[in-house]
Amino acid sequence: MSGQDHVVIFDTTLRDGEQSPGASMTLEEKLQVAEILDDMGVDIIEAGFPIASNGDFEAVCEIAKRADKAVIAGLARAINADIDRAGDAVRHARRGRIHTFVSTSPIHLEFQMKKTEEEVLEIITSTVTRARNLIDDVEWSAMDATRTPIEYLSRCVEAAIRAGATTINLPDTVGYATPDEYRAMFEAIRNTVPDADKAIFSVHCHNDLGLAVANSLAGVAGGARQIECTINGLGERAGNAALEEVVMALRTRSDVLPYECSVDPKFVTRASKLVSAVSGFPVQYNKAIVGKNAFAHESGIHQDGMLKNAETYEIMRPEDVGVKETSLVMGKHSGRHAFRQKLEELGYEIGDNAFEEAFRRFKELADRKKHIYDEDIEALVENEIATQGEQIKVIALTVIAGTGGPQKAILTMDVNGRHETRECSGDGPVDATFNAIKEILPHEANLSLYQVHAVTEGTDAQAEVSVRLEQNGRMATGKGADTDTLVASARAYVSALNRLMARQNRPDHHELRAV
Amino acid sequence: MSGQDHVVIFDTTLRDGEQSPGASMTLEEKLQVAEILDDMGVDIIEAGFPIASNGDFEAVCEIAKRADKAVIAGLARAINADIDRAGDAVRHARRGRIHTFVSTSPIHLEFQMKKTEEEVLEIITSTVTRARNLIDDVEWSAMDATRTPIEYLSRCVEAAIRAGATTINLPDTVGYATPDEYRAMFEAIRNTVPDADKAIFSVHCHNDLGLAVANSLAGVAGGARQIECTINGLGERAGNAALEEVVMALRTRSDVLPYECSVDPKFVTRASKLVSAVSGFPVQYNKAIVGKNAFAHESGIHQDGMLKNAETYEIMRPEDVGVKETSLVMGKHSGRHAFRQKLEELGYEIGDNAFEEAFRRFKELADRKKHIYDEDIEALVENEIATQGEQIKVIALTVIAGTGGPQKAILTMDVNGRHETRECSGDGPVDATFNAIKEILPHEANLSLYQVHAVTEGTDAQAEVSVRLEQNGRMATGKGADTDTLVASARAYVSALNRLMARQNRPDHHELRAV
Repeated sequence: MSGQDHVVIFDTTLRDGEQSPGASMTLEEKLQVAEILDDMGVDIIEAGFPIASNGDFEAVCEIAKRADKAVIAGLARAINADIDRAGDAVRHARRGRIHTFVSTSPIHLEFQMKKTEEEVLEIITSTVTRARNLIDDVEWSAMDATRTPIEYLSRCVEAAIRAGATTINLPDTVGYATPDEYRAMFEAIRNTVPDADKAIFSVHCHNDLGLAVANSLAGVAGGARQIECTINGLGERAGNAALEEVVMALRTRSDVLPYECSVDPKFVTRASKLVSAVSGFPVQYNKAIVGKNAFAHESGIHQDGMLKNAETYEIMRPEDVGVKETSLVMGKHSGRHAFRQKLEELGYEIGDNAFEEAFRRFKELADRKKHIYDEDIEALVENEIATQGEQIKVIALTVIAGTGGPQKAILTMDVNGRHETRECSGDGPVDATFNAIKEILPHEANLSLYQVHAVTEGTDAQAEVSVRLEQNGRMATGKGADTDTLVASARAYVSALNRLMARQNRPDHHELRAV
Repeated sequence: MSGQDHVVIFDTTLRDGEQSPGASMTLEEKLQVAEILDDMGVDIIEAGFPIASNGDFEAVCEIAKRADKAVIAGLARAINADIDRAGDAVRHARRGRIHTFVSTSPIHLEFQMKKTEEEVLEIITSTVTRARNLIDDVEWSAMDATRTPIEYLSRCVEAAIRAGATTINLPDTVGYATPDEYRAMFEAIRNTVPDADKAIFSVHCHNDLGLAVANSLAGVAGGARQIECTINGLGERAGNAALEEVVMALRTRSDVLPYECSVDPKFVTRASKLVSAVSGFPVQYNKAIVGKNAFAHESGIHQDGMLKNAETYEIMRPEDVGVKETSLVMGKHSGRHAFRQKLEELGYEIGDNAFEEAFRRFKELADRKKHIYDEDIEALVENEIATQGEQIKVIALTVIAGTGGPQKAILTMDVNGRHETRECSGDGPVDATFNAIKEILPHEANLSLYQVHAVTEGTDAQAEVSVRLEQNGRMATGKGADTDTLVASARAYVSALNRLMARQNRPDHHELRAV
């Protein structure tokens, strides 16, 4: 800690990240993400937008109950009902926070809010006051702060602090600012607002012009001491500042960035994989810190230099961010005990039923695949966790495909305990398989995303399939893993369908999202 | 142009980008990328590293011959043979450039070069002089400039300018700098080096800490007037500054960044897709400017704001960067003429044989798929372009797969004009298919990447498969598209194999790569 200023890391993967079109997560997935965020030392987890739906409310409550160390925040518009609902959700936490926001820029006031500057000032005072009457920890955000004239923004911040806001967030909502501007904004506000030192200032940057991380650090240089960010930079449009980049920049360049934060970077690789898995958003190979190539060197000159001294070309070591050598771990002779140990080593705690099912599938896999790596076990267990409690299951599948056509699939599914079998043809084996699912379980959903990647190298690798279905503006993503890409596809589709059906019973929460 | 300073855009997708592990491109692919870079108004195209291999040399020569407007640069280490070879390659261009580099940081001097500062100064003088005797346009780069003490860096730059370098590039080779430091470095060097105004200064930033774009702009604020960048930010490790982000930042924030550049941003979406296709590197959904979600809004509040005034949440319009509405274009009744027109509209010029083959496959596709979109035609034609002149082809495939196992494949291939058929089993249908290829054509390559994505929405979409094979440190990526994911997989594998075999006859050029 060495006397360096502490920068609070505020993760909004579960709110701003989950708000990305197509990235919606289930309760179970949110709990998993929250757990790793808490374990890695994130100071504040924004767990959702409680008024948005009952599902969002429950997720925030559940995360609040389970968090060990992190403050749990819930988002609320500048509306009494929102604030009360957020307060109800976060009061389950050891430490809770209400995060309320309102637009301050002229363009938002004119076109979206249809309110005058004075009206918005009154709203700030009344909503922050209401929140403070519910809880001690209140964050207020000036939506579109970077396009708000500094004089008016000062008055808003002053009103929020006077009403009791303990954190003031000045987001670059549209990803518009340059680092110099963003820093200057914080300096100007902190210099002009009386009692500015009574609140912690916060940055929240979007990456539309590729500047989110630089802007976040510039805001800190300007006096902010909280960074809002997401795993993998998930978030609307081009996303938010990536937590892993912010944390590693602070750490790697602590010589010129004299701040410290509590996040243990050893968790970021696992967190990145988990968020990619539950959102269905792949991480590009050349993504900083967590991309497949982030620590890979092809060039002969570089490789040669690496051998001589790792520092020649590497400013970070892969192990700093939790990248492990892929290890050959298990074979067909490994028993229950070894399998459970391996799961613990990989950070999984699963119930007895799920363990037995995972072990059964592990033995099955070991019969078919010579070498079983950590990644294989991760895919298998995540598949197990994701499909727990699903009403519909794939039992058996046979597919005939190829250039001759028509391709056909014979599928048996378990639908609420009853087995049903259908034979269908289609344009390609995937289409045939999905047609069979549709025959057994008629539905109107559209397939909006289908992708496959191999879990490890080699032609006998497991295929991990992601399927996203869309119906009436609702989306659900399912995943499946198997050495047979068609079986994995069927499982992924059925998993997505299970989730979509679960979501039909919830109100459409896309009507009220923000920041 | 309005009196604003011109910033030169130097694209190194074909050199630093192609240097990413696994991103190697064929000659035909490099020519396609160079053509779109030239069309979009990139000032300088770094086309390759001529000494690296005969293939690299040929690619630089061929691009040099074909470029209409762009300066064509070839890279050379600080070695006479490299410089001469680069000179031989770029002299075919209307305007050519030799780009030579040497390490200047203490850590590189000690561990990689084993040379003293004085020795390196002599090397700079002699190599830049040699390059200037071959050509008027010479760029010199100080490898690892950001970790070089400023006094010594000044002496190096002075020596390079005195020897005739017209561009001085100060790269952040390891992605280490912060914007403030990087700007200060350019200011210090330009203030201390006599005759600094005789050269154009250049930035070259890597994205290891997520700061590449911000650093590039900071370098320009410090006096640099050339930005080295790549499409999609392709490049070693976390890649280079992304051309599309740099260009759109300059354009969107011209109010505070008073520079102009010649790149027409309407080309960036097409360029991004092409580079993603030929490198096999997917673009993540939340990638700035060119990601699928870059212009997508989920949140109800945002959507509502959008309807009222697009500027409320959008600082750029999708059409600015060439994003088009996906249009329903063709059906089974479309004829040759309409198909050729569509190809021209999409920017493809293909020979008569390739056209006939593409048209045949289009009709085949139209029989199997109800709606044919631009993306379908792009996948089909790119498949056609990629497989032209290949010696080995997939003729017929039948696969039986599913939970029952063992899965098996019956495959017929054309190997140099002879048809061969094999039946193989495997762990999953993909493994079985690849095993059949291995039986027909024995080889030792390892499958290092396998991925599939659907070209459009819907279960009858074409699957586009990427396969990367690796053998003795050489890698080759192949792609295949078909409504049958297994047929597409076989085509992709065979395409990768064709490329890998073509590469066996070349020297290993990974021994000499850099910057």
